[in-house]
Order: sequence, then structure tokens, then C-alpha cells
Amino acid sequence: MRRIAALALLPLVAAAQAPAPAKPKTPSEITAGAPRSDWREIAAEDLLVFELKDGKKVVMQLAPEFAPVHVANIRALSKAGWWNGAAIYRVQDNYVVQWGQNESEKPFPAGVVAKPPAEYARPLAGLGVTPLGSPDAYASRAGFVSGWPVAIHDQEGLANLAHCYAMVGVGRGLSPDTGTGGELYTVIGHAPRHLDRNIAVVGRVVQGLEHMSSLPRGTEALGFYKERTSDVPLVGAKLASDMPAAERPRFEYLAGASFDAYLNARKNRQDDFFIRPAGGADLCNVNVPVRPVPAG
Amino acid sequence: MRRIAALALLPLVAAAQAPAPAKPKTPSEITAGAPRSDWREIAAEDLLVFELKDGKKVVMQLAPEFAPVHVANIRALSKAGWWNGAAIYRVQDNYVVQWGQNESEKPFPAGVVAKPPAEYARPLAGLGVTPLGSPDAYASRAGFVSGWPVAIHDQEGLANLAHCYAMVGVGRGLSPDTGTGGELYTVIGHAPRHLDRNIAVVGRVVQGLEHMSSLPRGTEALGFYKERTSDVPLVGAKLASDMPAAERPRFEYLAGASFDAYLNARKNRQDDFFIRPAGGADLCNVNVPVRPVPAG
Repeated sequence: MRRIAALALLPLVAAAQAPAPAKPKTPSEITAGAPRSDWREIAAEDLLVFELKDGKKVVMQLAPEFAPVHVANIRALSKAGWWNGAAIYRVQDNYVVQWGQNESEKPFPAGVVAKPPAEYARPLAGLGVTPLGSPDAYASRAGFVSGWPVAIHDQEGLANLAHCYAMVGVGRGLSPDTGTGGELYTVIGHAPRHLDRNIAVVGRVVQGLEHMSSLPRGTEALGFYKERTSDVPLVGAKLASDMPAAERPRFEYLAGASFDAYLNARKNRQDDFFIRPAGGADLCNVNVPVRPVPAG
Repeated sequence: MRRIAALALLPLVAAAQAPAPAKPKTPSEITAGAPRSDWREIAAEDLLVFELKDGKKVVMQLAPEFAPVHVANIRALSKAGWWNGAAIYRVQDNYVVQWGQNESEKPFPAGVVAKPPAEYARPLAGLGVTPLGSPDAYASRAGFVSGWPVAIHDQEGLANLAHCYAMVGVGRGLSPDTGTGGELYTVIGHAPRHLDRNIAVVGRVVQGLEHMSSLPRGTEALGFYKERTSDVPLVGAKLASDMPAAERPRFEYLAGASFDAYLNARKNRQDDFFIRPAGGADLCNVNVPVRPVPAG
């Protein structure tokens, strides 16, 4: 696939030559050409910036529409400095990276709900769904809500955030414990959708996931690091809304007609490389475009 | 999820107490308890061992039933020392790791078919399929053939190896080029199934994938490393069948009634941690058990 790298240049070259019949746009071309009005900015209080050593940052988008109590907890934990001195202590290949205070005795700050409800799914009613239009092995159908990949259970009238790559969930013990939000994990492998509706999904990583996904895998059962000296320390975490305006990271996701076109192109790849468009897509293989808000 | 680590011990503890109602076995318990007769050993000529620096090894299983000419090429390349001095030169997060001779001028050895046929799918006839029993977004149905995850296109009478995590494909340029097998990639993210039937899938990594999946991500387009000094050198590669018998790695995959039970348990997780079994599974979230053949 080395030569794929050169392909990105082809459309530019072709444009300088004789006119050719219109070709369907690729997903990248649709994203790059989307009008400003088809991008939706993510609220500053929904962006949480984790800082690792050496200035590395991992930016997470919170999903209060799906797990309001857990998200409120995570905001309260951040404001109280919970993540200062936390660490990544589990990296399981094709599964998850997990971080938090692990086995430390750090007490929960005031304002944190110790036993949140089981926010594993929410009522479907009131959600504006862009249908995926392909079958799903874990739900009656699937689609997208405000840029989130969502599984829909029509008979029960419920919807849940799907455990796609980069999604973030709340570590917990056995039921009825739902976790507080003090221990989090993100998916770094094929979507472990069997966790859907068994765990509170609270958001996704929108930038810097590679600082987690490229960490050495843990050698203990479930990918836990054997020695605490292997843990990867966190400096801390801060909500974008708690930063001075000039320092806040800003992100936006693709929506509107451009997202519809992007979804269709993902299902029917017609780039020069492709011989046979699939005619469909798995929910977690669509990858809703999210990017920093362009300057200016 | 920290406390999940402790859960693995629970069944042992319970066994020492009063008898409890029989609980459904977990996927891990089924795999651990499967009789020898439900494991199938992989042929030595189908195991290719890539050696990285520091003695790190990545073991790949070849799939001659699905891409015979490409697999014959890969065997011929290995015997001729093609991989000596090759390198990993592309690591794209949530996508692929790719390795080979990249832009070097190393000539193909004799015996390599320069233009193999498009082995992107094969006739369904003659394949013994264990059905997945859940819908698939990319095919009319899905299942398992000799331990491989397979997508089935009934109308066309075709089957193809699915681009699941750890599967290995052949890098190529634009069609009708199908690649020789001299540049390979493996999946390190959510299954990029849109590549199905567009590329020759030739096998999967059965051990050591973490040596690839945890590499730093490339910063150039498509995850290519910018500088050749970032490339990760390969010492070489050797077929298990070309090693002295005592040094050969040996692997086996789960089959028979134990695999059927494992598949059912993966679709209906009833471990203590799970509240709601999914009732289904995505083809690439089943993860057919493959392990070194136990000693003795």
C-alpha cells in the first residue's frame, strides 16, 4: 500500500489537465470541502484535557446527554484535582487503556455522587438520529446523534453510546456498582460492543489517543501493568471551560448534509484504490470527523 | 474496572464453598477446559516468524486456502531472505502497521509471481462454515472456516477473509496491481472491513502483535514515518517448516463443540460482571482462540 500515499495528490494533478467526468467525492474530500455551517462546535464544558508527562495531551469530549450524573462527577473530580497524580495502569492490546487513582486511598472530593444510577442507556425519545442504514449485531438499528455513534433498541425505546474505538467508559466493580467516573478507560481495539449497556459510556477521545494506544501492553491478566513503576503518570486534567479563553482547545464535529454525504461515501468507497464498494458500513467503522476549530 | 482483575479468582473461591446452581461457563472457562480433540494444530508451513530487534518475534499464520498464489509468494520471499533488512515504515492509529522493503530497490527473487491474480475472495463451495448467527454490515452473512473469520456473499457464491484486528493483507498500488506479498500490513484498530474484497488477505498475526501495535504512530499522511531513521528494522523472517523441529513454534486454534460453545458464550456474556448479554456478536469481536500448543 506504499503507493497509496501518492494518491492523495492525484485529484490536484487531474484538475490541471483536461476536464474529466465528475467523480464521486471521497470521504476526505467531503470533509475538507464541508461548509462552515456543517460543523458543530463542542461546548467548552464538554472538553476535558488530560495532561501526561512531556506536555502530551489527551482531549476527551464528554457526553452529558447520555450519562449526566457520571459526567457531572467527572467534572467535579476534575475541578477538585482528582487526576493530579493519577496514572495509566492498564493497557490491554485490542481492548482498552485505563487510568485513574487505581488502588490509592485518595478520597473522593465533595460533590461527587458515590453511587450514580446505571446510565447505560437513555430514552430514544427526543433524540435526532441519522440512521446508519446497515445492520448491527448488537441492536435493532444504529445511527448517529449529535456526532455520537449510537445503538438503538426500538422495542425498549432505548439508545446507548456504542463502544467504538476511542470511546470512553467508566470502570466499575460488580453490579449494582456503576463506578463514579474516577477510573476511566478508552477503547484501543476492535469495538468491544458486548460492553454496551453494561457500563456507563461517558464520551470519547478526540485528540491525542495515540499517546495512550501506543503505550507498552501490560503483562498481567487483563493488561494491568505488573509494577507500579510501569504506570504512566498523569500531571492532571482540566475542563476547557476552566481555562482562560485564549488557551482553550476548541473542537467541532461534522454534521448536516456534509455528514450525510460523508456517511454515504464511507459506505460506498469509490476512491481510485477501491474496486468494490461495500454498500454498507459497520457503526464503528464510520469514524465521525472531529477536528480542531480552524483558526480565523 | 480495576476490580475486574479480582474476578478471575471468584470461581475458584466459590468452588470451595457450598454447591451453587450451575452457572454458564465464560468464554475463558470454555477455552481453558476444552479437550485436546477440539484444538487443531496449524501446519508448520503456514507459520511465518518475523524477527525484530532485541529478539522480539511476531508469528503470522498464512491462509493458503484463501490466497494461494500470494501465500506461495510470501513463502518464496521468506526462503530467499526478502525480509532481511526490511522494516516497519507505517503505523497508522486505528488502522494498520505496514512492513516490507518500502522504497528500496531490492529485486524480487526468482519464483515470485510478479502479478498474482486478484485473490480477494474465493468460491464458497467446499468450505465448512460455522455460522456467526448475527447480521453483518458487509456481507449476506458471516461465519468461521477453519478458525478464520469469513464474510459470505451468497448471491455470488463467494467468501472472503474479513479484515479483523490482527489480520494480514498485501499492500498494493492501483488496480489491477494486487501486490506481490513483499509489503504486508496488519490491522491494529477497528476492523476496516471496507478493504474486504479490495485487497488480498493472506493470514493473521497469532503472537507478538503487541510489538507492532504499540509502536509510535507515524506523523505523515496515512501514518507513514517521516524519517527513515524512525523505521523499525526487521532482522528477517523464517517459516516454521524451515526451522529445526525442536525450534519450531507450534500453534493451535479452537474448533469443534468447544468453539461452538465459546461462540455462544461470546454472544451471551453471563460472567458476573455482565448485566445484559448482547444476544449477538460482530464477526470481528469473537476473537477465535489461538494459542501455543501446550507442552507434553
